[in-house]
Amino acid sequence: MKKVAIIMGSDSDLPVVSKAADILRELEIPFEAHVYSAHRTPEEARSFALSARKEGFGVIIAAAGMAAHLAGAIAANTTLPVIGIPCKSSVLDGMDALLSTVMMPSGIPVATVTIDGAKNAALLAAEILAVADADLAEKLDSRRREEAEGVLRKDASINDRI
Amino acid sequence: MKKVAIIMGSDSDLPVVSKAADILRELEIPFEAHVYSAHRTPEEARSFALSARKEGFGVIIAAAGMAAHLAGAIAANTTLPVIGIPCKSSVLDGMDALLSTVMMPSGIPVATVTIDGAKNAALLAAEILAVADADLAEKLDSRRREEAEGVLRKDASINDRI
Amino acid sequence: MKKVAIIMGSDSDLPVVSKAADILRELEIPFEAHVYSAHRTPEEARSFALSARKEGFGVIIAAAGMAAHLAGAIAANTTLPVIGIPCKSSVLDGMDALLSTVMMPSGIPVATVTIDGAKNAALLAAEILAVADADLAEKLDSRRREEAEGVLRKDASINDRI
Amino acid sequence: MKKVAIIMGSDSDLPVVSKAADILRELEIPFEAHVYSAHRTPEEARSFALSARKEGFGVIIAAAGMAAHLAGAIAANTTLPVIGIPCKSSVLDGMDALLSTVMMPSGIPVATVTIDGAKNAALLAAEILAVADADLAEKLDSRRREEAEGVLRKDASINDRI
Amino acid sequence: MKKVAIIMGSDSDLPVVSKAADILRELEIPFEAHVYSAHRTPEEARSFALSARKEGFGVIIAAAGMAAHLAGAIAANTTLPVIGIPCKSSVLDGMDALLSTVMMPSGIPVATVTIDGAKNAALLAAEILAVADADLAEKLDSRRREEAEGVLRKDASINDRI
Amino acid sequence: MKKVAIIMGSDSDLPVVSKAADILRELEIPFEAHVYSAHRTPEEARSFALSARKEGFGVIIAAAGMAAHLAGAIAANTTLPVIGIPCKSSVLDGMDALLSTVMMPSGIPVATVTIDGAKNAALLAAEILAVADADLAEKLDSRRREEAEGVLRKDASINDRI
Amino acid sequence: MKKVAIIMGSDSDLPVVSKAADILRELEIPFEAHVYSAHRTPEEARSFALSARKEGFGVIIAAAGMAAHLAGAIAANTTLPVIGIPCKSSVLDGMDALLSTVMMPSGIPVATVTIDGAKNAALLAAEILAVADADLAEKLDSRRREEAEGVLRKDASINDRI
Amino acid sequence: MKKVAIIMGSDSDLPVVSKAADILRELEIPFEAHVYSAHRTPEEARSFALSARKEGFGVIIAAAGMAAHLAGAIAANTTLPVIGIPCKSSVLDGMDALLSTVMMPSGIPVATVTIDGAKNAALLAAEILAVADADLAEKLDSRRREEAEGVLRKDASINDRI
Repeated sequence: MKKVAIIMGSDSDLPVVSKAADILRELEIPFEAHVYSAHRTPEEARSFALSARKEGFGVIIAAAGMAAHLAGAIAANTTLPVIGIPCKSSVLDGMDALLSTVMMPSGIPVATVTIDGAKNAALLAAEILAVADADLAEKLDSRRREEAEGVLRKDASINDRI
Repeated sequence: MKKVAIIMGSDSDLPVVSKAADILRELEIPFEAHVYSAHRTPEEARSFALSARKEGFGVIIAAAGMAAHLAGAIAANTTLPVIGIPCKSSVLDGMDALLSTVMMPSGIPVATVTIDGAKNAALLAAEILAVADADLAEKLDSRRREEAEGVLRKDASINDRI
Repeated sequence: MKKVAIIMGSDSDLPVVSKAADILRELEIPFEAHVYSAHRTPEEARSFALSARKEGFGVIIAAAGMAAHLAGAIAANTTLPVIGIPCKSSVLDGMDALLSTVMMPSGIPVATVTIDGAKNAALLAAEILAVADADLAEKLDSRRREEAEGVLRKDASINDRI
Repeated sequence: MKKVAIIMGSDSDLPVVSKAADILRELEIPFEAHVYSAHRTPEEARSFALSARKEGFGVIIAAAGMAAHLAGAIAANTTLPVIGIPCKSSVLDGMDALLSTVMMPSGIPVATVTIDGAKNAALLAAEILAVADADLAEKLDSRRREEAEGVLRKDASINDRI
Repeated sequence: MKKVAIIMGSDSDLPVVSKAADILRELEIPFEAHVYSAHRTPEEARSFALSARKEGFGVIIAAAGMAAHLAGAIAANTTLPVIGIPCKSSVLDGMDALLSTVMMPSGIPVATVTIDGAKNAALLAAEILAVADADLAEKLDSRRREEAEGVLRKDASINDRI
Repeated sequence: MKKVAIIMGSDSDLPVVSKAADILRELEIPFEAHVYSAHRTPEEARSFALSARKEGFGVIIAAAGMAAHLAGAIAANTTLPVIGIPCKSSVLDGMDALLSTVMMPSGIPVATVTIDGAKNAALLAAEILAVADADLAEKLDSRRREEAEGVLRKDASINDRI
Repeated sequence: MKKVAIIMGSDSDLPVVSKAADILRELEIPFEAHVYSAHRTPEEARSFALSARKEGFGVIIAAAGMAAHLAGAIAANTTLPVIGIPCKSSVLDGMDALLSTVMMPSGIPVATVTIDGAKNAALLAAEILAVADADLAEKLDSRRREEAEGVLRKDASINDRI
Repeated sequence: MKKVAIIMGSDSDLPVVSKAADILRELEIPFEAHVYSAHRTPEEARSFALSARKEGFGVIIAAAGMAAHLAGAIAANTTLPVIGIPCKSSVLDGMDALLSTVMMPSGIPVATVTIDGAKNAALLAAEILAVADADLAEKLDSRRREEAEGVLRKDASINDRI
């Protein structure tokens, strides 16, 4: 199976990003994590992106905050699908990271998910790999059914709790 | 090859969304378009999503404006990757559609692209299909090189034009 | 008397939403609560909405956060009045939920109240039922007078407290 | 049948607000329009609201822009349901009117619709009157079916147009 | 000397608003405080405004949060200068109150100050009264000089503290 | 009678600001206009402010766009009431000017009016002068009554026009 | 004299960016322009930045819109001062470009100027070069005096024009 | 070596601003700090700016919050490069200070950095001085390499920590 890369701009993003790793482990998808900054280690981010496809990666998740260029900098150097997680930092509630990640110019897409949405990033990576992997698709469907059942269990008792 | 679906909430979105079709045609990726509204034809949107994988679709692109629920409503009914295009409408410059598309709750990702970013949506769909299709990946790489050459041609004469 | 439905997208919204239940109990309006997610249990949300009128409901309150599609998804499947409560989540102070709830496209209205405004949602539901119920209207008028008297009691002593 | 009132803060809002009148005429709901300003004719706005229920009104629609106090000022003087239309003015794209209309304090709800959403305001008013009027409810359901059919007719030819 | 009125929409605003009272006491300007809500006690707010000039008031300060209509509702019923303090509430950091207070339509001005700017509101009220009161003007000038000296004392030691 | 000063940061603001002059002429309030920039002619802006009270001014209106420092720079050098008009420029719809004008730090108030609200600025200036001028107060009250009558004339025919 | 580089992300930015060239020509500062995209030609942008100091550049101006990574991508590869011009594009009025340019993480500054502020970018570049060039500093001072005189000429006739 | 000035609008900004001093000390760049307010001590801010170049300063850093006029007021009185740090205050997360600092009108640039970005302000000041100082440039390059190595050390162990 193709691997997923999880790149974060700073290890301070680890508490958010580790939720992506949890999902990938749960789905038994191989992954590799890196701390590469678009601004502090631009060469490493670029090199990684340039060779990612031939190194066996299928999807790259990139998480960064503020003027979050990481996902875009990765996407500029590969045609693998790149998923961007805009991270909330100390001001502006992640709006800066969201706009810096999603408003990519024509030609270089970044698949942007919810602010701090590491779990959704990992699920999206799995959905992408599952396009050509029926077993993984079934795992994802099954996971959805369980989530739905969880909601319905909450529903069953809500009139007693409200 | 798996097909791409392009769903738009209203045919008034056609001038934006047709740019996605142009890219898919250029890349020889089969696609099918629909006008389904999350609010006016919720049943059709849902039925389409539920059967999309077994109908041979690999990726679904959904374009909508305002309280743009379409991508999320599709994503709620499939585990195929769903790409959301937030469309600008008469007020708020697409910020309403962006937040309605990207801020999905945990468990149901939408791969959101630039406001009115139909071209990027199609390229992202192609990148997703190319994960398991080396020929398509090479087409995308080649397209990138051509775009870069176009920029460099502009660069060559810019000092005469500024 | 017609019943009010209170639907919440997640039971984590209960601390906010329970204030709606308190008002309905105070006004002796029958209600029923549900946890249905537009994204995790779309089928249940839809079925509920489709049959709500014939099940005796007169108004539906729907509370959700982030890309808050719940009220719109309910409204897409019924012509009962649907009241949307945009809930604040961990980022953006509820602005995402507000725009996702209020900016509905032409044809499918959602009666949107204050961010986290569960009390106002319940009062609006009561006002709607009171259009054809003079006793309930009188209760609401009486409640207003009491609120005004509460303000005036505060006014009576404010010069001593400032 | 109870009447609907359409109050606008200025007759410059007429091009927006007249769409509400069109819907009410189509649905054969009696209505009465007024130009009352919360700021320029506060006494008239207040008197109208105070006597609206006994004058036979069932719902009041109020449309205003900028620091849009009109819906709130009406709601402060009646317990009839008040629907607020935030109108776009020359700056800020209606965000000022939206926040001034929807962020009502606890106790005095305003049912806020889309910015410039006069059609949705009228449909919401109809939905409110239809709670106790099965014929009107059937008209609304029938209208919805027609809107859905319109979308599906667009869908039928979209692959030829894209 | 003409009196200043300090009106607040709720006594929960007292911690903010009391800073205005402190300044007025310091400057020996007579004032009177009230808790009047534009929405819960509209009649009291209106009556107060209508008679304020003949009751000896020269300036009215109005503080409110959320869809902050109080200053505008007062201003609609008097031609005395009305100063609006937009108060921060639990969401949106006071941006809702700022827009609801400052974006008044043509004809009815509100002199809006900083979000939660009760001290500035009182100083502005004093500046207004000082237009026709040279002693008060001198007090304000003297206060300014003291503030400047306070800054310069901080400046004198800053290189030791940084 | 004390004079009003109208200061604009650039003569490109004249189309907006001239509406203030129209109101002052209508009310027979003497005024003097200046083009002074807080950034391009800081010394002139400062000198004007420092001597304004003794030159017979009672109120200063300052209009500027973008990082609109003019009103604050004037207010820093006088204790006369300073009214700020935030002007819309080519981007951001005046939000930059609004925040730069209204969010003054504690100690130096600016009485901020509507974005591009020159008419309201002049009316506020008149209200300030009218605190000590009963004739001017009566003019303002009379002007209000005429505005109200204008609204009511519109109201009289609105049902024919909608 | 050290040269200034003007890098633009796309030649569609030329109408904005050419104003920077005009200023540099007026001040007789040598410059060189390039069209390099952080996303479409990342390698060229990087190579240019890496060698810019030794190629004789003293300041780099970078102009880009949307998720404007260009200035940051340049700054990541040089310790020359980098000036960022956030360019307005078809939506969001340049707010996306502003946040993407200015909110740089700790360690990699970008000197951000006004949205579309090419003239200010060139003046800032000149100010930077003038730190070690007294003649250029005098030119800048002289230019300022002329601008001030221009304002004062406008001031001289404004009372006739208002 | 030319000196750097660090001006703050209030000593309450010291916790943010002291990080600039730390960087300057680390780089052995002489600096001088001041507390000058654009509004409370406008004359001192102006005098300082007017004489800064001849007093041996090469760059001025100005930090302020809210309607942050300080950097602009300094820049209006010198052609030295002025770096603005927008400081977060109790509301609006620094967006008010950002717009008040960066949106300078044509002719008077302010080099704006990240909200609360004192470290970046100091690095930018160093980059400006390093244009004509090869040793300082080398120090900055060396500092960058160390930062990159720090990131790579984090990278080396991230797969064990995620």
